[in-house]
This record gives sequence, structure tokens and C-alpha cells, in this order.
Amino acid sequence: MGRWEPNPRGRLTEAAMALYAEQGYDNTTVAEIAERAGLTERTFFRHFTDKREVLFVGAVELKDLFVQAVAAAPPSARAMDAVGAALDAAAVSFQDQRPRVERRQAIIRANPELQERELIKLATLAEAVGAALRRRGVPDLVADLTAQAGMAVFRTGFERWAESSDGTPLADVLHATMADLRIAVS
Amino acid sequence: MGRWEPNPRGRLTEAAMALYAEQGYDNTTVAEIAERAGLTERTFFRHFTDKREVLFVGAVELKDLFVQAVAAAPPSARAMDAVGAALDAAAVSFQDQRPRVERRQAIIRANPELQERELIKLATLAEAVGAALRRRGVPDLVADLTAQAGMAVFRTGFERWAESSDGTPLADVLHATMADLRIAVS
Repeated sequence: MGRWEPNPRGRLTEAAMALYAEQGYDNTTVAEIAERAGLTERTFFRHFTDKREVLFVGAVELKDLFVQAVAAAPPSARAMDAVGAALDAAAVSFQDQRPRVERRQAIIRANPELQERELIKLATLAEAVGAALRRRGVPDLVADLTAQAGMAVFRTGFERWAESSDGTPLADVLHATMADLRIAVS
Repeated sequence: MGRWEPNPRGRLTEAAMALYAEQGYDNTTVAEIAERAGLTERTFFRHFTDKREVLFVGAVELKDLFVQAVAAAPPSARAMDAVGAALDAAAVSFQDQRPRVERRQAIIRANPELQERELIKLATLAEAVGAALRRRGVPDLVADLTAQAGMAVFRTGFERWAESSDGTPLADVLHATMADLRIAVS
């Protein structure tokens, strides 16, 4: 493949994900990713800081999506309903990505360092949601607690959806998981 | 102070915490910790792997305490009640440690690397609680969700208690935080 082919970023991502799945994340070098994509290492580093970033590049967009959805909830919405609106927005954005998500989860599950990074990503997300709730006037403690509980719903529901094969939409799985939380604490 | 003084581990911990608070975690060396404690670096490394471990040495005990309390809850206890029993057990163990906890929290808050380590500690705790719930027969998803929500209560309640100065016992703060979660999801 020549360097004039379009979408270098997408090709690098696809090459990296395929190699991580085939031979493991630790065993894959940037040189191999670039080679598989038919590009140079220099091109790789124009798009990504390192090989880990390929897996976490969506984190900022996801955070923005959550924060904007929380902010856009009606003023009358309670804290957890605002978080629920964010979960609905996330569900829309992930719904058509299941094969990609499934592959990514398998790569992350296989590597303790990536699992730690994923935990930190989710915790950062919870902090951003907590801050967005505080900007709606939710008291500090309730904001943090609601954000963390909401992220527990997102995390467990998301994993359930990524591992299931029955075709249930992510939005439905997240709603069912929120209902499970309600029952668990009642 | 001579090397024959008792409790080297406690002295090293006290010296490390004092130096982290005075001059920052990053700026403190093991040599300085040993010197302040009147001990050698070699003695330090007999007790701790590195300077970070001084701050996280209680993590294993805390995990055991949570897991044992979940396991010891009456068979009829619901998942969140078993987690509540674990929170009560943790409250007893931390109740007299508030000055130490307050100092530790301040050190961790000042350092992003330590914050990440603390998040991972809490996530590991949530995983262990989830596993303990599964051993009680709680279905996987509900176990993980309840464990994560329970840890959200622990984390926010614990911080509230560490930062408050009104003398409310940790157990009461955790109960109030659980009630807040119930209201938030209802």
C-alpha cells in the first residue's frame, strides 16, 4: 500500500487493533503497526503519542459527550436523570460499534497495565460527570456519589452488552442495569 | 536515635508521612526517610518495597476486612446489606485514625501518580467485594454493580468524613451516604 492512500489514522488503528488481538499488546511494536498499515513510523507518531493511545483516543470525546449531555438535561431533571441522559447519549454513540468494542475489551482484559489505564479513564469520566452535576447546582457529595454510581451502571452495563450476543440495544441494557441498581439499594 | 530503638516500621512510616507532608512526595528520597527515622536505607527496604508502599501498605488488610465482612453477613442478607456490613467493619477500623487519614489524603491529593494508585486500590477493592458477593450466590452483574456502588458510598463517605471537623463517627457518615445513594437512584 502506498503512502497516498487515504485515512492513515483509520488504517493505523485497524492495523494496531488486529496486531494486539493476534499477538498481544506487549508483543506489538509501532514499527509493526506502521508496516501492517503500509505507512511509516513517522506517520504513526503524527497521529498517536504511543501504541497505548490507539486504544484510548476516544476517551476525550466520550467525556465531552457525557458532560454535554448532563449539561443539556432539563433544569428540572434530578441528578441521576441527568446522568441517565448521558448514558442514553453514550448508548447512541456506541450502538453501531459493538464489534470494535468487543475486540477492544478483549485486548484490555488481557493486559493489567491497560486495565489500570481503563480504570483511570472511567474514574476521570466519573469526575467530569460529578463536576458537570455540580455546575447544575447539585451539592458536592451528591454530585460525586451520583456520578460514581452512574459510572458503575455504565461500566457494568457496557461490559454486559459487549459480552452478550442476543442483540439487545445498549440503551436497553443500561436502563436494565440502572433498574438493577435501584433494586440493589432499595 | 540508635538502631536498637523499637518499632522501626512505625518510625519509618511516621518519618515518611512527615516528609511527604512537609516537602512533597516527589521531593522525598528513601535516604531522607531513613535519616529522619534514625535508621538505614537497608532497614527501610527490609520493610517497604519503595517510598510509595508506605502509603498503600494497608490496602491488603482493608481488602481482607471487606471480603471477610461480606462473607460473614447472614445468609439471608441481601447483597447491599452484606456490603453495608463491610462498610461498618471498615468504619470501626478507621474510626480512631482520622488524623493519619487526613494527612494521607492530603499527600495523595497533591500528587497525580498517587491519585491514580489510590483509584486502582479502590477498584481492586470493588473487584474483591464483587467476587465475595458472587461467592454468596449473587449473580455476576448484580455483584459487580453492588460492589461498585458500595465502593462509591465508601469513597465519597470516607472523603466527607476525612474532611469534616464536626466529629461525626465514620459509621454514621457512611450510613448517611448510603441513604443519599438510595435517594439519588429512587
